[in-house]
Amino acid sequence: MLLQGKSLLAGLTGATGGTVFRAINPATSESLAPDFHEASLAEVDAALQAAAAAFEDYRARPPETRAKLLDSIAAEIEALGDTLLQRAQAETGLPPARLQGERARTCGQLRLFAQVVREGSWVDARIDPALPDRQPLPRPDLRRLLIPLGPVVVFGSSNFPLAFSVAGGDTASALAAGCPVIVKAHRAHPGTAELVGHAVVRAVAACGLPAGLFSLVHGGGSTVGIAMVKHPAVAAVGFTGSHAAGRALCDAAAARPHPIPVFAEMSSLNPVFLLPGALRERGAALAQGLLGSFTLGAGQFCTKPGLIFALRGPDTDAFLQALATAVQGAACATMLTPGIQAAFVENRAKVTALPDVKILAASGVTPDAKKTQGQPSVAVTTAANFLKHPALATEAFGPFTLVITATSADELTACVRAGGQLTATLHGTAADLAAAGPLVALLEQRPGGSS
Amino acid sequence: MLLQGKSLLAGLTGATGGTVFRAINPATSESLAPDFHEASLAEVDAALQAAAAAFEDYRARPPETRAKLLDSIAAEIEALGDTLLQRAQAETGLPPARLQGERARTCGQLRLFAQVVREGSWVDARIDPALPDRQPLPRPDLRRLLIPLGPVVVFGSSNFPLAFSVAGGDTASALAAGCPVIVKAHRAHPGTAELVGHAVVRAVAACGLPAGLFSLVHGGGSTVGIAMVKHPAVAAVGFTGSHAAGRALCDAAAARPHPIPVFAEMSSLNPVFLLPGALRERGAALAQGLLGSFTLGAGQFCTKPGLIFALRGPDTDAFLQALATAVQGAACATMLTPGIQAAFVENRAKVTALPDVKILAASGVTPDAKKTQGQPSVAVTTAANFLKHPALATEAFGPFTLVITATSADELTACVRAGGQLTATLHGTAADLAAAGPLVALLEQRPGGSS
Repeated sequence: MLLQGKSLLAGLTGATGGTVFRAINPATSESLAPDFHEASLAEVDAALQAAAAAFEDYRARPPETRAKLLDSIAAEIEALGDTLLQRAQAETGLPPARLQGERARTCGQLRLFAQVVREGSWVDARIDPALPDRQPLPRPDLRRLLIPLGPVVVFGSSNFPLAFSVAGGDTASALAAGCPVIVKAHRAHPGTAELVGHAVVRAVAACGLPAGLFSLVHGGGSTVGIAMVKHPAVAAVGFTGSHAAGRALCDAAAARPHPIPVFAEMSSLNPVFLLPGALRERGAALAQGLLGSFTLGAGQFCTKPGLIFALRGPDTDAFLQALATAVQGAACATMLTPGIQAAFVENRAKVTALPDVKILAASGVTPDAKKTQGQPSVAVTTAANFLKHPALATEAFGPFTLVITATSADELTACVRAGGQLTATLHGTAADLAAAGPLVALLEQRPGGSS
Repeated sequence: MLLQGKSLLAGLTGATGGTVFRAINPATSESLAPDFHEASLAEVDAALQAAAAAFEDYRARPPETRAKLLDSIAAEIEALGDTLLQRAQAETGLPPARLQGERARTCGQLRLFAQVVREGSWVDARIDPALPDRQPLPRPDLRRLLIPLGPVVVFGSSNFPLAFSVAGGDTASALAAGCPVIVKAHRAHPGTAELVGHAVVRAVAACGLPAGLFSLVHGGGSTVGIAMVKHPAVAAVGFTGSHAAGRALCDAAAARPHPIPVFAEMSSLNPVFLLPGALRERGAALAQGLLGSFTLGAGQFCTKPGLIFALRGPDTDAFLQALATAVQGAACATMLTPGIQAAFVENRAKVTALPDVKILAASGVTPDAKKTQGQPSVAVTTAANFLKHPALATEAFGPFTLVITATSADELTACVRAGGQLTATLHGTAADLAAAGPLVALLEQRPGGSS
């Protein structure tokens, strides 16, 4: 299948003017054909107007139509076969097994949302019948249900080229709810985006739905993205990526004359707490598990544990020894893009250059003249130092983690109060967890926080 | 009961320094004793810190404790007896029957939330048990439920001194959910606020709960309000009032390092659509009903119909004639505050001074040298003119409404697209409603909009 390198705008292909870019194979640093053409703001505006018009039609369609569209998109993605997997591998450096699994997850998500739409209870209908004899005033018949908001702009992620991208979870849920979708393709995998985008376009046409229901936009930097979030036709935004980019979109959405919601999954350090009993009983296994977790996908998961908390003592010393040995033997891995690799090296250096931070271990480096690899590494510091230097909570997106040793449970609690996270994890025995009530209560309130 | 004129800060009374103000009897324009003392920012900070500390305790309490607190607040409010109603009447000019009804509603809300807390399903618990044999990966045990956010700042409204004020719906729902509350009292009825505030403080103490669970702050202008919304201890905001003030709070909340939600009910024009069949069948009754609706409470309800849409024709002419006659015979009524009266006169003049707006009728004015009264009045214009002058959609909070006559259904639709509203109403026959599908579809998406 020949790639065209153009945006897909409400069933039409974009123009070939404007800035051009190419995907880069992160394993070889070679650029990949063809050229991709950024959409103009006028093209984006036309796509959003078409989405608004398509919304008036689509929102009135019966649930079965939406469900069939989702099933049809899944089938079209599967029909792309190895073409899709090969292009995705070339653009991301992710191994074939991972991409096969991610494709299965993507199609599974689409079909899951189709089931939810058919089942129907997601509209959360409430019917309070009239009470004409109620005192002091009669109650009228009251009804409420969830309805679609309108066109949704989806920003695809770098690290999930299928499952959180063109036809990923955000797109599936928006289409399921009755909302048109305009995807801003991630520049790291434009060819993968185009292939999946064509699959969606085919499904929309096969279901007899208006072409404005779906568009795929190529664009550079934040100009096109911010313009879309500010556009009056847009009703909501889905985003997966860095905190800086997500926050800029949130701010633009909140400043609109009519603010709109931004559903953003942004960077996170995902703290892990290793409680004393767990360290005593299974310290070596925790070290091995932690290595697997922070190096999985070259550390490029939104849930990668970036901060490991433990109380000081001989069990923690033994754990650190086991972790150091494991990390030294770990393999380097190709990172998603040259930019992500450079940011990883830079952010890790920001953390390790701070006072009283010690490199505990790093894996042996193979020659990496092309700067494509992520090197598994771990550093240690104290809780007192962590509280003194907020920059220690900098996310290094990649295979790096920071162990923080505390002298007391109060020090741990103080560290938790310093910020919100996407996830938090505790490893403990039953006795550990029974004693960790205050820490658990505090952690309950932190994950999901955006900063 | 002697009023002290001080803030109630986590069980302590505020200092007597700083700026002083008094409530004004809107019916007589006389100021009411005693002086009220604005809280300092340091006092507000202390109250919010106390709320954060109280949250750690309160959130862990069983549902029955929260339910008892709500029931106890309702009983304490009722125990205030006529003292409360008399002060509320002096501060707001609202008639005794209305205030009795509002007190019943307020206590009813508190007891309703107590029932909801006892029943328990509001936490929306989801339990997905582990599937250890799931392919390709096992599923762990997954659990989810709603939890309280933390301290909530509530801004009381001018027009509901009880039901949307110190112990109103926002406060009841926050306490029910497990959140401490800090109320910013409305300057129009500080004595009413103090009485209810003391009732809440007594209930908190009687239930053995930490005093930081509730504070009542007197403050001027927006300084104290914005400071509270920006305070790191605050987790959410409840607001009822003008669009300008509510938007300022929303913007401050969105700009925080960690943004927080603002649940704001802001000004609205609440458009009403009179469809042809309804006008033909019951035009005179609609005119009488409309008069009652837009003059209820001197037009100071959030749901007051401020825009009336109808298609041009003889039935609409007859309706306008009936409306004019009804309005001419209507009585003036005392408005809530001198400021609200002045703003009403000013905003009505803004609308009626625009080109091609005609005063249809106004009630006979009794001498009003003290400028306390709201004069029922109605103006007419065309849909074409409405689309040309966005300022025609200015809310005049008070007993004024604007009738807009359209030449076609398309013109009506264009008017709807011009903005969002809190409510929308259609009067129609079965045939009218069957023919109004596109209008209904559009209106479904508008109410709830914030601008």
